[in-house]
Amino acid sequence: MISLQEMGQRACEAKYSLQKMTAEQKNQALLAAANALREEAEEILSANREDIAAGEANGMHPGMIDRLRLTKARIDAMAEGLEQIVGLEDPIGQVMETFERPNGLVIEKKRVPLGVIGIIYESRPNVTADAFGLCFKTGNAVILKGGSDAIRSNMAITKVLRESLNTVGVTPDAIQLIENTDRSATSAFMKLNEYVDVLIPRGGAGLIRAVVENSTIPVIETGTGNCHVYVDKAADLDMAVKIILNAKTQRIGVCNACESLVIHESVREEFLPILARELRSKNVEMRGDEGVRIYLEDCIPATEEDYGKEYLDYIISMKTVSSVGEAIAHINKYNTRHSECIITDDPAAAEQFLNEVDAACVYVNASTRFTDGFEFGFGAEIGISTQKLHARGPMGLKELTSYKYIVHGKGQIRG
Amino acid sequence: MISLQEMGQRACEAKYSLQKMTAEQKNQALLAAANALREEAEEILSANREDIAAGEANGMHPGMIDRLRLTKARIDAMAEGLEQIVGLEDPIGQVMETFERPNGLVIEKKRVPLGVIGIIYESRPNVTADAFGLCFKTGNAVILKGGSDAIRSNMAITKVLRESLNTVGVTPDAIQLIENTDRSATSAFMKLNEYVDVLIPRGGAGLIRAVVENSTIPVIETGTGNCHVYVDKAADLDMAVKIILNAKTQRIGVCNACESLVIHESVREEFLPILARELRSKNVEMRGDEGVRIYLEDCIPATEEDYGKEYLDYIISMKTVSSVGEAIAHINKYNTRHSECIITDDPAAAEQFLNEVDAACVYVNASTRFTDGFEFGFGAEIGISTQKLHARGPMGLKELTSYKYIVHGKGQIRG
Repeated sequence: MISLQEMGQRACEAKYSLQKMTAEQKNQALLAAANALREEAEEILSANREDIAAGEANGMHPGMIDRLRLTKARIDAMAEGLEQIVGLEDPIGQVMETFERPNGLVIEKKRVPLGVIGIIYESRPNVTADAFGLCFKTGNAVILKGGSDAIRSNMAITKVLRESLNTVGVTPDAIQLIENTDRSATSAFMKLNEYVDVLIPRGGAGLIRAVVENSTIPVIETGTGNCHVYVDKAADLDMAVKIILNAKTQRIGVCNACESLVIHESVREEFLPILARELRSKNVEMRGDEGVRIYLEDCIPATEEDYGKEYLDYIISMKTVSSVGEAIAHINKYNTRHSECIITDDPAAAEQFLNEVDAACVYVNASTRFTDGFEFGFGAEIGISTQKLHARGPMGLKELTSYKYIVHGKGQIRG
Repeated sequence: MISLQEMGQRACEAKYSLQKMTAEQKNQALLAAANALREEAEEILSANREDIAAGEANGMHPGMIDRLRLTKARIDAMAEGLEQIVGLEDPIGQVMETFERPNGLVIEKKRVPLGVIGIIYESRPNVTADAFGLCFKTGNAVILKGGSDAIRSNMAITKVLRESLNTVGVTPDAIQLIENTDRSATSAFMKLNEYVDVLIPRGGAGLIRAVVENSTIPVIETGTGNCHVYVDKAADLDMAVKIILNAKTQRIGVCNACESLVIHESVREEFLPILARELRSKNVEMRGDEGVRIYLEDCIPATEEDYGKEYLDYIISMKTVSSVGEAIAHINKYNTRHSECIITDDPAAAEQFLNEVDAACVYVNASTRFTDGFEFGFGAEIGISTQKLHARGPMGLKELTSYKYIVHGKGQIRG
């Protein structure tokens, strides 16, 4: 097992060779990696079976076992993921702007890789291949730290990817995995500023908080979503039911699912019984304030904590307001800056909501479930940023780049 | 003195009202602030005299006293700075991209303020007004933490600015100053994630390192510059002398000054005596490797530490290389990712250098001293970023913004 320090050095050397590669060279390597995953599927599955067995022996929750489990189909999906990345435009080298100064200096702003990206993630082993693909396409070296439950699977996937790079003459250090599963290794990784340019945590709220609090490397915070749907007094109520059901129940464990309903008092009487019927049919537990509960006898009282919570479960909180301004204030107080929606036919209410709600993605009359790199047409996604620095919302290839200024002179000096 | 928690809350309330202001409203407030600085100059100067007296009593270095000192002219320059910001285009509200998805969703990417910006800086009190002006124009609330040496001056300036905002009906909490000069207040400020979106340190390497290591708020690292000039074998040597002299001595205490010369072995014999004559005339101490010292008897041996050092002084380190590749490797090992220059008439050497050197700004045949928001034509500068996340190089108004995605639907749900 090599030291973190040495991994950092190797990643730095790799980044200089990756940034020189053409899009065509990178695509060939990605195709080789996709083939290797398919060809070596049995090796990966065998390592994965060991992880599963260890998980079961440790009494791991069945839902977690499912996240951890690889199958031939899932490995094939990982390979397809890499092939899809081949089809995307390479942003590296794009000239974003060119300007000439009065003194004759010509300044180009050119897209470059970030350099070395660190990714800390939880138990899904497919992240290992996905993250590699996106980082590699954008000329970045990646250092991965996966969950200890998936260590054998991640090691097997990394080995296959590294060997495939070797066969096409690309430095295998484009992808490195931290094999030490101690927490101390994670702590040290988060302070590897000398080598790592950016750290991206992918996982639950606890993991993300730990990284934000302990990393000295710049972090892109991703993924926590306490998303609201606000039903305005001018809402199309049929549409509102469909959107809330979709946003709440189409997939419950995801960051862009709706966790909270905000409702204008004037539509409660008509709307709540219809909505509640649908929510009950999906076994969604309702937790509301007094203004909601007078219309719904099976709605239990919501606490302050409910309004701040990302349930990721069949539960929804409900809050009554008397104006769009009050809805905005409630959302800005409790949301995680992820995705927020207003259902209304009133353009003025929509505009106020879209402008004043503080979130990466604000919707009028559409489900919050669309906050996603693929749904946005980016073709890929490394995560959904909930911070404002660098990237906000779905992050595709462009969001894994930086830029540099290239200045062409003829001997200019400053006066 | 109000608590940090309360300052955070006030800044958050202020940010919601600032983001609604039009460019015209913001400009009126900036003009009022500029007038107020001029009208209340005596009050500010009186506070500044107390800071100076305290500094002198504590044996403060005369150079530091000079940085701390305000005069009528310097206050006028602060007011002019605000007036210049009025003339710059307001980036807020710009639609950066619009795209329609196959399902009919129309997505706009719109520029918005970052929200609340924290700035930690050292003794120049003019930063108080400058930082306010840039943050205010971009709709951000700012919380400032200046050096304890300038606390009376900063309080006086902040008071004048806050009162001027009040008179034009703008929330004074657009600018707040942390008056507690304890280190503990700085530590707590760096962990105010609930309210502060970004922290920008402005000052020496020690301050910046302390912020990077201790802040849990996203940081934009600014300002440390160990900048190199590489004289290639195909260099115009007259041009090289002029550029090195300018980059090294035009102003020594700044981050874009040249700290290190890298020289191709084949031009040493002709070039070094000419350059050395000029450097001696400016009293620049030379510290070089053996390959340089055989041509310069007054050049003292350079240590490993010299190559990594931002002198901010009349000292230059010198290193011999035998190729542009070796020059690039040396620079990438020791630089601070700020500004790097190659002097050459060989387009291939220039291209390799510009592509492979890892720095915010890379130059061919021009002084590194041009890395500056004004010189780049941004009209203003909050600092020079040496990190790759968010902004790189000179940061003007646009770099103080984020974006949000505004999604217009007609009832779309995800299938």
